Amino acid sequence: MNNPDQTMAVTARAKFRPISVDKVRVRGFFGSRVDTISAATARTLFDRCIEAGMLDQVDPERPNPGLVLPFQHNNTVTSQMFWDSDWGKFIETAAYALNHQPDPELEARVDDVVDAYGRLQQEDGYLNSWYIRIEPGQRWTNLRDRHELYNAGHLIEGAVAYYHATGKRKFLDILCRFADHIDRTFGPREGQLRGYPGHPELELALVKLGRTTGEQRYLDLAKFFVDERGQTPNYFDQEAERRGERPEQFHFGTLEYCQAHKPVREQETVVGHAVRAAYLYAGMADVATEFADDTLSAPLEKLWSHLVDRNLYIHGGFGPSARNEGLTFDYDLPNETAYAETCAAVALVFWASRMLGRGPDGRYADVMEQAIYNNALAGLSLDGTRFFYDNPLASRGDHHRWVWHRCPCCPPNISRLVAAIGTYFYGVSDDGVAVHLYNAGEARIDVAGTTVTLTQETRYPFEGRVEIAVAPQVETEFTLWLRVPGWSEGATVAVNGRPIDAAPKNGYIALSRRWAPGDIVQLDIDLTPRRITAHPKVIHDQGRTVLMRGPFVYCLEQVDNGAELDALILSDTAEIATEESQELGGIVKLTARATRETWEGEGLYRLGTPSRQPARLTAVPYYAWDNRDPGEMLVWLRREEK
Amino acid sequence: MNNPDQTMAVTARAKFRPISVDKVRVRGFFGSRVDTISAATARTLFDRCIEAGMLDQVDPERPNPGLVLPFQHNNTVTSQMFWDSDWGKFIETAAYALNHQPDPELEARVDDVVDAYGRLQQEDGYLNSWYIRIEPGQRWTNLRDRHELYNAGHLIEGAVAYYHATGKRKFLDILCRFADHIDRTFGPREGQLRGYPGHPELELALVKLGRTTGEQRYLDLAKFFVDERGQTPNYFDQEAERRGERPEQFHFGTLEYCQAHKPVREQETVVGHAVRAAYLYAGMADVATEFADDTLSAPLEKLWSHLVDRNLYIHGGFGPSARNEGLTFDYDLPNETAYAETCAAVALVFWASRMLGRGPDGRYADVMEQAIYNNALAGLSLDGTRFFYDNPLASRGDHHRWVWHRCPCCPPNISRLVAAIGTYFYGVSDDGVAVHLYNAGEARIDVAGTTVTLTQETRYPFEGRVEIAVAPQVETEFTLWLRVPGWSEGATVAVNGRPIDAAPKNGYIALSRRWAPGDIVQLDIDLTPRRITAHPKVIHDQGRTVLMRGPFVYCLEQVDNGAELDALILSDTAEIATEESQELGGIVKLTARATRETWEGEGLYRLGTPSRQPARLTAVPYYAWDNRDPGEMLVWLRREEK
Repeated sequence: MNNPDQTMAVTARAKFRPISVDKVRVRGFFGSRVDTISAATARTLFDRCIEAGMLDQVDPERPNPGLVLPFQHNNTVTSQMFWDSDWGKFIETAAYALNHQPDPELEARVDDVVDAYGRLQQEDGYLNSWYIRIEPGQRWTNLRDRHELYNAGHLIEGAVAYYHATGKRKFLDILCRFADHIDRTFGPREGQLRGYPGHPELELALVKLGRTTGEQRYLDLAKFFVDERGQTPNYFDQEAERRGERPEQFHFGTLEYCQAHKPVREQETVVGHAVRAAYLYAGMADVATEFADDTLSAPLEKLWSHLVDRNLYIHGGFGPSARNEGLTFDYDLPNETAYAETCAAVALVFWASRMLGRGPDGRYADVMEQAIYNNALAGLSLDGTRFFYDNPLASRGDHHRWVWHRCPCCPPNISRLVAAIGTYFYGVSDDGVAVHLYNAGEARIDVAGTTVTLTQETRYPFEGRVEIAVAPQVETEFTLWLRVPGWSEGATVAVNGRPIDAAPKNGYIALSRRWAPGDIVQLDIDLTPRRITAHPKVIHDQGRTVLMRGPFVYCLEQVDNGAELDALILSDTAEIATEESQELGGIVKLTARATRETWEGEGLYRLGTPSRQPARLTAVPYYAWDNRDPGEMLVWLRREEK
Repeated sequence: MNNPDQTMAVTARAKFRPISVDKVRVRGFFGSRVDTISAATARTLFDRCIEAGMLDQVDPERPNPGLVLPFQHNNTVTSQMFWDSDWGKFIETAAYALNHQPDPELEARVDDVVDAYGRLQQEDGYLNSWYIRIEPGQRWTNLRDRHELYNAGHLIEGAVAYYHATGKRKFLDILCRFADHIDRTFGPREGQLRGYPGHPELELALVKLGRTTGEQRYLDLAKFFVDERGQTPNYFDQEAERRGERPEQFHFGTLEYCQAHKPVREQETVVGHAVRAAYLYAGMADVATEFADDTLSAPLEKLWSHLVDRNLYIHGGFGPSARNEGLTFDYDLPNETAYAETCAAVALVFWASRMLGRGPDGRYADVMEQAIYNNALAGLSLDGTRFFYDNPLASRGDHHRWVWHRCPCCPPNISRLVAAIGTYFYGVSDDGVAVHLYNAGEARIDVAGTTVTLTQETRYPFEGRVEIAVAPQVETEFTLWLRVPGWSEGATVAVNGRPIDAAPKNGYIALSRRWAPGDIVQLDIDLTPRRITAHPKVIHDQGRTVLMRGPFVYCLEQVDNGAELDALILSDTAEIATEESQELGGIVKLTARATRETWEGEGLYRLGTPSRQPARLTAVPYYAWDNRDPGEMLVWLRREEK
């Protein structure tokens, strides 16, 4: 699917940007997911933040909670240091939920948190509840380990979203003052710190803030953080020495962990902590777009290929190891022990979506879709109240969603992604609109001097037909880019009923014309179930296959298939049937004839080879697993040729 | 293979004991392995102990080396605390090597170490180089973590072996004085400590010492340690409190780690650190034999079944996890990440061999053989100078033997096992000799009031014919028990050319007769290659098979089969051919027609199912792997029914 010879049809200076969430109305498949966020998840997140004592840490009018969560990593870090980021992501989620469904009570609760942050903010604009209330006097002394700039980024993203959702400027203003403080503190000038986030995130937040406020210096600051990262002498090592520590005592051994081992333009392989990696690359891609910086595009291409060609799970997750929450070595993709953190899949969506900033390219949109519909979406239970942290591709029955987590980064992260899903559907340049993902709903898009209403009618991803009504305010010429998924065996396009004979280029069909109100585009995408096999170096997947249909990776669950899922074998020639079901919020199941190896008696090992009996298998989309009776789960099914 | 209804033909008070190493002359398959120990390994171990500074710690005439190896586990333990055990195992290995091949220079080097221990020993008999020289004043304060009694056990085993090999009593006397000191210090009486080894080992060493010296109190002390273990209040918890620590802060969380979570007679499942577990059970079995204690036999049976029916790798190793160097949960037998420490397989040999103390039983002998010929033997390179610590059943090419290890427990452990291998061939009771393992060589055995010379002529394990000349000094009636391996499809026995029509019972054919000089027993064991499959709950092995021949587990190596071993598929119906080879010290290879799935182009995943081409596979015994060009290795091969 990866063709480096493809060239972009758009200009080298193209800048495709997402539209803000308030401009998209989501119905259909994702509509019901966002309904759940509005109805349940946003309040659940708020309640659990409160229960954890998080507001007590922020609000100077409340008694100081002190250390609530134990330290980790030789007493250098507690996840309590990241609580501001959780508030940022909660507020961001709530903002999108309010876009979808007004909720005065929820809005009032957010305003309470905003007010607390207003009271917390220091005279000079500094804002961090840990360093102001729990460990005062230590600010900016440990960027490597303690997430201080990361927290800033998440608060900024929350503020931008809340501003778009409500029009209220208070939180945005608070965060602009903090961003200004950071801009004064960090930079290349005399007296400034040449540091950068130990956990990247602020970079992409500053680009959002710049786009929202129109302030170029936020974009410049994002670029400074990107450019400065990994330069020699290494800031994190110098900082460690200033703390009286030896740099080589770093808990994670190597600065690859936080992608600060070399300047970003020299980085070619995805290493270290997965979420940090993808957030960094997302920030790099944003900077590449905003500054039309091709010196970033080249390393981003290499990093992308390294991930997609060597290190990406079929469900769109990455980072197999719990030890560093990240990468190990090429082709190391164990299924049962896959860490594949929900946040890493969310971060990959961010990265992939930003790789579309230089123009439509199916390589990125396909992976964005793969991560969204599978690993990421699995992170949230269908009822919206429980959350996966790690996302294995096989389970013996003991893996279930958490109500909460000691390090609660994933719950609000998957929630904000799903609640903002509309923003990933479209990319907009001066004279073009790219449709990256298909889902029922409306969008209002400013392009080529007019505002266009795009209305998608579709049951995608369960059916392949998509109708898009293109309604500019006035008849206007622009290009509509329609993605044809790389996994699709074929797709047909018609405009106003007339078939278009256009082969997709870079995964998109470009329809350049004078669009007028009443125009209808019809797209039909082939959703025939597919068998996928893996490269022989992926040792865990050999002799196995994954069933997919549309963007969905399917899995077997014990509740449908009985126990010992690894005893089931699917022939390469067995017909895969589809079956609509009202279960699991409405899905299409896949079923097939199979065989089951049988085992009689006790003991681990037996002479000879097993006997068999006929069986049937029923597969459901991976994102929906563990929402019924708990039990085994399996993505990579045993296959046989005959 | 596990039949609980089987009953023993021997009396309930039967005591089968091993013969000492000096009574067995080993030739044939194991002869060449012991030649290597004598020629290379024993000196290599000594050199590396010296290089590591180990003698400096022991000898009070040398400058104190202080702390050489960093502390681990929150600064409570360094493997330097176990150096006495390494000396004990080195001396034991050297003693057996001297049995096999006199070597005055090696003997002189051992005497130097013995002299150093003589100088180190305290007035009251206490002997531990760490607590005397590095951390004086702390003796007997942390039995749980610091291996103090474990060290004593290994020194005792070394002393017993050196006494048998050379007749010199000095080291034995030193260790008897230390054993007497321990006997005064630990016990149920007023003023004694009711402790026991945190790392079991001393138990079985005391039984050896008792058998060698005839002193009953050493056996009684072994029984005390077994009986006291895990009693309430828990000694390790009380001891932790005396050190000012909270018991729940124990690094490994639960006392299951060291099998002290409950009294041994209430233990039914194999838990915690694998080596500790099997050493403990070996000690329990020794005590059960010496005291004819059936209250230990019942839990030992349950523990045995739990290991063999749920937790034993096909190569005879156990303990899948590096985290606790031990057990996780039932059926958790991952191949590539298998820890399966060499020491654990050695410990299992100890346990299994001691389960034969109550009489011949093929269940134990089969597993003893499985562990010896596969996991354990792999621990030592063919040239005798490099060592595996962990023993995965699949490798992508990056797993190789160490020259030395920070925690060098495995090198001298596998070495002493191999050097002493003759002692595992036979078990002797008052009126019977059991032949557990077949290998060319002679043994002098005292039984039924005479001395019998047994001479085995055989190319076993590569050929199935075994001839045993039974030569008592005078014609004498006793029972010769001949093991018929559980994996063998059939075996025939003849005495003096006359076929014996006797079905094996409990895995042994019992030949009770008046034996006379010149008697010849001939045994033919079927060595047809076998395919083994695993229980469906062992998810990592599904769709796969292991090839075995005789006691050997076979594996594929890249050097014979090319890379990407997981692309090779063996049909259930393909003929497995044998091929004698001079490679790898002389082996029988297995070969078969197979198919190889092919993969064109880049990328991780591909639509559809792979195409194939004909291939051949060549398998070698697992113990011999990683002695040629480094590369991939695979034990569980992909199979298909057709």
